[in-house]
Amino acid sequence: MAEVQLFGLWGSFFSHRIEIALKLKGVEYEFIEEDLSNKSPLLLQYNSIHKKVPVLVHKGNPIAESRVILEYIDDTWKGHPILPENPHERANARFWAQFIDEKCRVALRNAYGCQEQDREEEATREACELLKTLENELKDRRFFGGDKIGLVDIVANFIGFWLGAIQEALEVKLFTEERFPKLYRWSEEFVNCSIIKETRKVCPQETNLFPLCVVVMDSLVRNQDVN
Amino acid sequence: MAEVQLFGLWGSFFSHRIEIALKLKGVEYEFIEEDLSNKSPLLLQYNSIHKKVPVLVHKGNPIAESRVILEYIDDTWKGHPILPENPHERANARFWAQFIDEKCRVALRNAYGCQEQDREEEATREACELLKTLENELKDRRFFGGDKIGLVDIVANFIGFWLGAIQEALEVKLFTEERFPKLYRWSEEFVNCSIIKETRKVCPQETNLFPLCVVVMDSLVRNQDVN
Repeated sequence: MAEVQLFGLWGSFFSHRIEIALKLKGVEYEFIEEDLSNKSPLLLQYNSIHKKVPVLVHKGNPIAESRVILEYIDDTWKGHPILPENPHERANARFWAQFIDEKCRVALRNAYGCQEQDREEEATREACELLKTLENELKDRRFFGGDKIGLVDIVANFIGFWLGAIQEALEVKLFTEERFPKLYRWSEEFVNCSIIKETRKVCPQETNLFPLCVVVMDSLVRNQDVN
Repeated sequence: MAEVQLFGLWGSFFSHRIEIALKLKGVEYEFIEEDLSNKSPLLLQYNSIHKKVPVLVHKGNPIAESRVILEYIDDTWKGHPILPENPHERANARFWAQFIDEKCRVALRNAYGCQEQDREEEATREACELLKTLENELKDRRFFGGDKIGLVDIVANFIGFWLGAIQEALEVKLFTEERFPKLYRWSEEFVNCSIIKETRKVCPQETNLFPLCVVVMDSLVRNQDVN
């Protein structure tokens, strides 16, 4: 058994968070792809409370919930800190990571998944407002973490990885360069980092994006990590 | 201006979290009671994103979101650690703190606030299942933090502080000694600690519990800290 194992799911941006952090730290790991329609006995044992991916197993000890895992990784492996050293800056990073999970993700789900035409405009407006708030926090920095990828960049990975694909599949234009010039530049910069490219298992051109987007939308929809 | 200020609300268990942590650490602070129907310009300035209490201001730097503030306090003042030293135990504490906020709190809100009779039984069953899961995690320890009050105890303060009062006001019996002997013992032990008693501003016997419970239920209902 590898010292570090990650029970995850291709296409889950919660799993990607953990992969990015491990790669940034230079930690070798075994990725174990889960079949959510037939979860492995090990996953059910390791995360008996939520029965969800991702789960990190380090020396036989399981850790669940993606932001908890990110903190664990930063507490355990010291290279390439994910969180800043300064307590106030640490708090700021945690604040924005939570903002992305609890606000932006939910609003984007509502905007992309809205079935009712009269609610669509409001949902889009709300998602845009929250993305603008996030953009204002980015300011003119290369990454939310400054010159280096940090916690907030990792948590926001779905904006860089998936919004483009989702928009293409659903024929929605919400996250555009015109609307969010700085956040758009960030997303380009982020996905083009060599370490991020390694994590991103680019789907071939011929792949139909739709089934993929269903998985990602599923991640967006749920309150927690993928079920 | 005091070096440490807490913008909070009497009766908000989110504010209590911060007060408990500061008292455990022996940090002097100024408590600034907010009027939620007329929020102070300082609160709106310090937490311009959520406009909610609690907000901790340390040397002029504001920090919002109660669990983020707790981590900040533990990062800043080293006496009486709130989180364990060991990374796996730290992750475990963060996992259960999140479980209490995202699962137990929501389920208790549903159980106590359920208006539809046919949903009431299911909501109560779900809340009981989650409290039982939490009780199983407590095991035979004095506190979730072991011999000392830690992050999970602080986050769970509403169980000790308020469930009794809410049940009395609403005439509901859900959290009982018979159903949850260990968790009940924990809640008794917790509220009777001298440092917790200091934080708990006991309402006089003659106080009608109902308006108080409205404030607390309000905290329970919201996804985030009190608005």
